[in-house]
Amino acid sequence: MCELYSKPDTLALRGKHIGPSCKVFFAADPIKIVRAQRQYMFDEKDEQYLDCINNVAHEVVKATLQQMELLNTNSRFLHDNIVEYAKRLSETLPEKLSVCYFTNSGSEANDLALRLARQFRGHQDVITLDHAYHGHLSSLIEISPYKFQKGKDVKKEFVHVAPAPDIYRGKYREDHANPANAYADEVKKIIEEAHNSGRKIAAFIAESMQSCGGQIIPPAGYFQKVAEYVHEAGGVFIADEVQVGFGRVGKHFWSFQMHGEDFVPDIVTMGKPMGNGHPMACVVTTEEIAEAFSSCGMEYFNTYGGNPVSCAVGLAVLDIIENEDLQGNATRVGNYLTELLNKQKAKHTLIGDIRGIGLFIGIDLVKDHQKRTPATAEAQHIIYKMKEKRVLLSADGPHRNVLKIKPPMCFTEEDAKFMVDQLDEILTVLEEAIGAKAESVTSENAPSKTKMLKETHLGLLSDSTADSKENSSRKRNGVYTDKHSLLSKRLKT
Amino acid sequence: MCELYSKPDTLALRGKHIGPSCKVFFAADPIKIVRAQRQYMFDEKDEQYLDCINNVAHEVVKATLQQMELLNTNSRFLHDNIVEYAKRLSETLPEKLSVCYFTNSGSEANDLALRLARQFRGHQDVITLDHAYHGHLSSLIEISPYKFQKGKDVKKEFVHVAPAPDIYRGKYREDHANPANAYADEVKKIIEEAHNSGRKIAAFIAESMQSCGGQIIPPAGYFQKVAEYVHEAGGVFIADEVQVGFGRVGKHFWSFQMHGEDFVPDIVTMGKPMGNGHPMACVVTTEEIAEAFSSCGMEYFNTYGGNPVSCAVGLAVLDIIENEDLQGNATRVGNYLTELLNKQKAKHTLIGDIRGIGLFIGIDLVKDHQKRTPATAEAQHIIYKMKEKRVLLSADGPHRNVLKIKPPMCFTEEDAKFMVDQLDEILTVLEEAIGAKAESVTSENAPSKTKMLKETHLGLLSDSTADSKENSSRKRNGVYTDKHSLLSKRLKT
Repeated sequence: MCELYSKPDTLALRGKHIGPSCKVFFAADPIKIVRAQRQYMFDEKDEQYLDCINNVAHEVVKATLQQMELLNTNSRFLHDNIVEYAKRLSETLPEKLSVCYFTNSGSEANDLALRLARQFRGHQDVITLDHAYHGHLSSLIEISPYKFQKGKDVKKEFVHVAPAPDIYRGKYREDHANPANAYADEVKKIIEEAHNSGRKIAAFIAESMQSCGGQIIPPAGYFQKVAEYVHEAGGVFIADEVQVGFGRVGKHFWSFQMHGEDFVPDIVTMGKPMGNGHPMACVVTTEEIAEAFSSCGMEYFNTYGGNPVSCAVGLAVLDIIENEDLQGNATRVGNYLTELLNKQKAKHTLIGDIRGIGLFIGIDLVKDHQKRTPATAEAQHIIYKMKEKRVLLSADGPHRNVLKIKPPMCFTEEDAKFMVDQLDEILTVLEEAIGAKAESVTSENAPSKTKMLKETHLGLLSDSTADSKENSSRKRNGVYTDKHSLLSKRLKT
Repeated sequence: MCELYSKPDTLALRGKHIGPSCKVFFAADPIKIVRAQRQYMFDEKDEQYLDCINNVAHEVVKATLQQMELLNTNSRFLHDNIVEYAKRLSETLPEKLSVCYFTNSGSEANDLALRLARQFRGHQDVITLDHAYHGHLSSLIEISPYKFQKGKDVKKEFVHVAPAPDIYRGKYREDHANPANAYADEVKKIIEEAHNSGRKIAAFIAESMQSCGGQIIPPAGYFQKVAEYVHEAGGVFIADEVQVGFGRVGKHFWSFQMHGEDFVPDIVTMGKPMGNGHPMACVVTTEEIAEAFSSCGMEYFNTYGGNPVSCAVGLAVLDIIENEDLQGNATRVGNYLTELLNKQKAKHTLIGDIRGIGLFIGIDLVKDHQKRTPATAEAQHIIYKMKEKRVLLSADGPHRNVLKIKPPMCFTEEDAKFMVDQLDEILTVLEEAIGAKAESVTSENAPSKTKMLKETHLGLLSDSTADSKENSSRKRNGVYTDKHSLLSKRLKT
């Protein structure tokens, strides 16, 4: 491949000219990527890597070029692309979500969502989830415990942090009778306390599934209850779909739709995959909220937001999702991958939990199944070893022990198999090295590893799809997959 | 031209799906633009418009395409484009400005600049100029009187508003002995008052020339003095070059460089023309400030910022500025245009002040030369009439009476002549209609309109270039141009 600089020179220039707060993946030995095709990336030696982390990219070039050659300008001129895109986008959403504001990034979208929410009834306070990440802007770091807990910043008094609805590692777990209500009651309590202090709730904001926070899927019914309490308080519900929207969950175009038709957020923000890497993002809301925002008399103008090129790119992405049946692919490949991973879970004691829908999957690594002690160092070791095997994964969550799988939407079953095979090898070697053996599984009264593996191979675990109606409540972390019981609490399936 | 929707349908769809806070140009009769080439835009009937307002667009397509076909990914992987661009960019700046952070918009850049400034010494307060506009994000509306004065928002206590250093319409004018020092002393006073209240200054932020605020050029020496006071207070100087950078002023690549080599900001933000309409922006700062930011332990990650496609676009833009000598063009065409406009000023009583450098020019319209009463309605009338004549201009400033000229950098002398001829016709008809005649000029003891016109045609005013060394202090608003006296205070020429 044609390189402008050798890799050491690239590194040296980066050290000199790029802010040290801008981290590279695999800091100890960063990768230089010079080209990519679909789910594969290639380094300067033309080594191929399987990409399991770049949830941004689809394939779209031609549309960009055509529109760039014709016209690019701002949205203060009329143009068909912006209205056509807004129309197509709103067709993917519940009817009341019909008014769009275009921005250049998910962060800009979330910032605007907060402004819309605060303008709506003049309330100021925001309820956010623990470990949430909503963007890199000042206003979003304030509501992102994932960020402000790492920095020297202190929580602002208008920010209220509710427990993340994590039924594997959170306050209320899968053994709780109704974790959805229990977590929603925490939000209710926060609202009551805020009211007692004379404060008013502008918004509850949450990713429809928490990504950086550790690939968390909220229990079914949680969002409905929260929306009820927040609306009672005069606030709005903001669903952040920046990382999880655009068909990634397979069955639905938006992740919040998994929670049933009786749940409709007041504001939805989106970004990342929207423009296939082209900086493009959006806020969609109701007419009522848009009118209230407009009545403040302040214009909203975003130089690049919704420009004809961005919208042409966005339209091409929508076409590709449809024409290549990427939602169908997310369901098929996601189910297959989850199935393979559940077999790995039965085999490897380091795997505490497999959770996910479509091509959004988390592997929660633990040192101890009962205590669920995060296997942080192990997770870091694994992503470096996976990189040696040319598979790109990242580890995230508050303990950095959750392997995040959110590959390009064109990911195939072969890719899934290849990834899991590499992971299997690495886990096998690692577990032997650290002496994590079948004992820790049997110590929880589960069948022996031998039986476990046998049953796995007999296909006993192979029906674990996201759409399954089964509602198993078998013992967690034994030979039987607990995926169903968790999922049934996580979602209406 | 191929349209997807008729213009009424486009309008209807826009009404339905695009937030009502997003305004169109010429709201009473918006323009639908379907294609553009250099400084010309074409509507759905293929009518050509001369573009005097889109400071964003250069021409660049090929580089985008090539990089899009190869790779687009985020900056967590090593890539040559980002380091090459950062290297090239820092070569245009004073040596100590060497560390770059890439973002998607000028707003994101300014937000990050504030975070860098606040992290540097842990100070929180920001001094901003009256009528300033620094972006559409929550954190920037707080420091943008241009915005928060229009909305229902109130000024936050950590924000301090200094008078805009406008020597035509501001607190200290061209007749003041030293407006630069007088305006800087206002900043000093603000700092002292903040200190007395136990507050600490994180930053002074200003556009190197105020754009939305009314095309204001600060007097020479002002920035140096302000920087001195702000540094003494432990704060940093942020120069916002989003609207005025990248060679628009002609002689210099950055507008702040007009103020002499003894002035170097601590942080520079840039955007708009940087990517020729591709969403791309940047913050450049010193190693010291970057290190302090990094030491807080919080990573800075921007999904699209500095991606290989954006940087390829940015590199192509830098090449074009150089290869097409766009800085030379800005100087030549800018000087010629200013010269033509000064002749108009001598002819038309509605023109109170012509100010500008290179292709950044303001025409301050007044009802009365002595009182300098803003001719707001007249300005609105003129931009609609100019549109009928197929010239796109906008009116801005706190009174919306300043015609803003900031055309694409490829603007020609013919374009300048055409624009001014149209303006001349409109002003002539308008002044006759409202009865603004030569009397108002003669009332200020200036020669008669006849003489004025004659002298204009004799070329007495034609040496008024930005680089002129002459330091005239003739009576304002008469037949003689006062541009020199103003400029000499505005800038070191």
